[in-house]
Amino acid sequence: MKVEIITIGDEILIGQIVDTNSAWMAARLHDIGCEVFQVTSIGDEPEQILKTFEEAGARADIVLITGGLGPTKDDLTKDLLCTFFRDTLVFNEDVFGDVKRIFDERGIVMPAINRKQAEVPSRCDVIRNPNGTAPGMWFETHNVIYVSMPGVPYEMKGMMEKFVLPRLKERYTRQERVYRTVLTQGIGESSLLEHLSVWEDSLAAKGLRLAWLPSAGKVRLRISAKGEDRIALLRSIDAEVEEVRRLIPTYFIGVDQDKLEVLLGELLKEKGWRLSVAESCSGGYIAHLLTSVAGSSDYFEGGVVCYSNDLKIQLLGVKETTLRQHGAVSEQVAKEMAEGAVEAMHTQCAIAVTGIAGPTGGSPDKPVGTVCICIRTPQGIKVQKYVFGKSRERNIQQSATTAMGMLYREILSY
Amino acid sequence: MKVEIITIGDEILIGQIVDTNSAWMAARLHDIGCEVFQVTSIGDEPEQILKTFEEAGARADIVLITGGLGPTKDDLTKDLLCTFFRDTLVFNEDVFGDVKRIFDERGIVMPAINRKQAEVPSRCDVIRNPNGTAPGMWFETHNVIYVSMPGVPYEMKGMMEKFVLPRLKERYTRQERVYRTVLTQGIGESSLLEHLSVWEDSLAAKGLRLAWLPSAGKVRLRISAKGEDRIALLRSIDAEVEEVRRLIPTYFIGVDQDKLEVLLGELLKEKGWRLSVAESCSGGYIAHLLTSVAGSSDYFEGGVVCYSNDLKIQLLGVKETTLRQHGAVSEQVAKEMAEGAVEAMHTQCAIAVTGIAGPTGGSPDKPVGTVCICIRTPQGIKVQKYVFGKSRERNIQQSATTAMGMLYREILSY
Repeated sequence: MKVEIITIGDEILIGQIVDTNSAWMAARLHDIGCEVFQVTSIGDEPEQILKTFEEAGARADIVLITGGLGPTKDDLTKDLLCTFFRDTLVFNEDVFGDVKRIFDERGIVMPAINRKQAEVPSRCDVIRNPNGTAPGMWFETHNVIYVSMPGVPYEMKGMMEKFVLPRLKERYTRQERVYRTVLTQGIGESSLLEHLSVWEDSLAAKGLRLAWLPSAGKVRLRISAKGEDRIALLRSIDAEVEEVRRLIPTYFIGVDQDKLEVLLGELLKEKGWRLSVAESCSGGYIAHLLTSVAGSSDYFEGGVVCYSNDLKIQLLGVKETTLRQHGAVSEQVAKEMAEGAVEAMHTQCAIAVTGIAGPTGGSPDKPVGTVCICIRTPQGIKVQKYVFGKSRERNIQQSATTAMGMLYREILSY
Repeated sequence: MKVEIITIGDEILIGQIVDTNSAWMAARLHDIGCEVFQVTSIGDEPEQILKTFEEAGARADIVLITGGLGPTKDDLTKDLLCTFFRDTLVFNEDVFGDVKRIFDERGIVMPAINRKQAEVPSRCDVIRNPNGTAPGMWFETHNVIYVSMPGVPYEMKGMMEKFVLPRLKERYTRQERVYRTVLTQGIGESSLLEHLSVWEDSLAAKGLRLAWLPSAGKVRLRISAKGEDRIALLRSIDAEVEEVRRLIPTYFIGVDQDKLEVLLGELLKEKGWRLSVAESCSGGYIAHLLTSVAGSSDYFEGGVVCYSNDLKIQLLGVKETTLRQHGAVSEQVAKEMAEGAVEAMHTQCAIAVTGIAGPTGGSPDKPVGTVCICIRTPQGIKVQKYVFGKSRERNIQQSATTAMGMLYREILSY
């Protein structure tokens, strides 16, 4: 089943936004055995859009289109689909209900222009949009399926997950691609390769594939297989996952969960411990990651972002003499911050981070990227100094990932 | 001058990596007046690659190809370019010197396979690669220019900046495209359209184009023009920017700066005021955004993430009776949080946010997405209740954007 993705919108062609939709869609389609063989990005030009619809239909079995469905003038896709399929727009009560509901929920009076959102081509299957006002459309013709969805990522994802992927899966029972993703933390890609290269070489003979997915502070390993017997495939992948756990016990964090904050949360809940954070250079990012998980109030008490020395003293009880003697970026201060967090917020566990995110503030002694992390549990306290890199963004990310990884491994070791 | 970008490589089509090269290239080309009108991503399939070379040459004047130039087996581009141009590979001493130097610098003995990197098609202009081992290639035929570059972003960027962009610019002294982006906040896309549609209709006659770029809690408007006199174009765009400011004074935030946190920081610095935050449902995200800006310690003091009621009472002095009478998500509590932040952290300004991010915790009275925001400045206090949507992620984003927008507008109004 050959799939082509068409993304419509000038913003991609002038480089104002990066197209992340295509990668997300391609990965999901890949999982159900539909192979994307081309992604075509074009602008808001009627002629080119029509020509691309035509050409894609000749190349592919399934054409997935995103973008150009808003209420504004540069949104042309719906009208052009009518032209392409010689169809006309009809008013759809259900969709109008959806649009009104969206505005009602937000307590906003619906602007008149949004009535237009409820007009849909007469011959398509309408894909309802729970997350926005523009409906999606599913057309079939000459053995080609055309699906049009909004370009707003979470609206597109909602439609893909609720409607498009299940329908494609149902229609084309095919070889499945099954995979598991191992999350590792605390070791870089090339060191990891040294531990795993012999094992990696053994995979091909077993019909397994490995992908390396590094990001700031962590590396994910995706082991995948393709075939018809899902259970057997999973069994053979699981055996390899156990092998990875055996090879790198210290760095192996979890399976099929990319998010350290989720795994850490589950562990804290299991122990019945609550967590607080004291953040200087990470500036609230750890609190943000932890609270991005639904239900995190079950184990996360709160945090203090103490960007100034004054706040470290006032809210966390860090001693002035410690700051003076060792500097704000020191293992000693990190330790007092963690103790202070536990005390001030009455939790069993705490994470404290102090460092120099950059680009300025470094010294020969403590270069940009120097970060001291302290973790505190009922069983004790651990503090560690790191030197990450020069990028402020990555230093903040690495501080957060490393700190959560330290606490996770520490609790797991009890 | 019509440009098509072709990216080659299976990793994009299975969603393993997001194609960031195209956006970067498109933005740079746009700046020198070369318009990218299509981006085509295809896999490592010889037939499809050749067919796409052919089709792109019929569509475009300039075809920029990235990917498929490494030394491994799935890298086919160079051989296929030979096929396409009926050319043969010849050994190039200069390139061989470059390749050897790269390995020398890294202190690695050059694997034999890399000798192949020094073979180039006889009829192309070689583009030297200072950052890697694969040379780029520049072909000309039938009024079409084909340029092949590696897919590794910093290798591609090096070639674009040192060779491709200067040569294209020299060759085609052309019309430039100039634009400005207006950031608006506090108003949705369709309501904004009601304010701006008459004005939008007037743009075409002046040779100007408008693009709408909505994201969580904000909408950006890009006004662009094309022509030869850059100064005159900018002048006519600036006049329209002023018109937008006049039409939506309340929602107009800034020009050519997407980030509210940067604009807010500049304003605070100008006033000499320091900011603290008190976050419940936004969970540290506002602190994270503010501290993601280098130099934010100049105006950001710190914050408290008070996920529990206890912390609201202890760290911010919120009254137990207020929590009992009005609930944690109420304008009254938001107000006491802001007052408490100013007091506890000794700042002139504060942002306080309390709400129900979801997915659970809602009630008929206060559904998921209910968020109360209070902002405090030396001139007074403002509090506002919002009902955003159902997505936890977006509620957190919208809370942050809306809160920063409220404070920005308030300070600007003095």
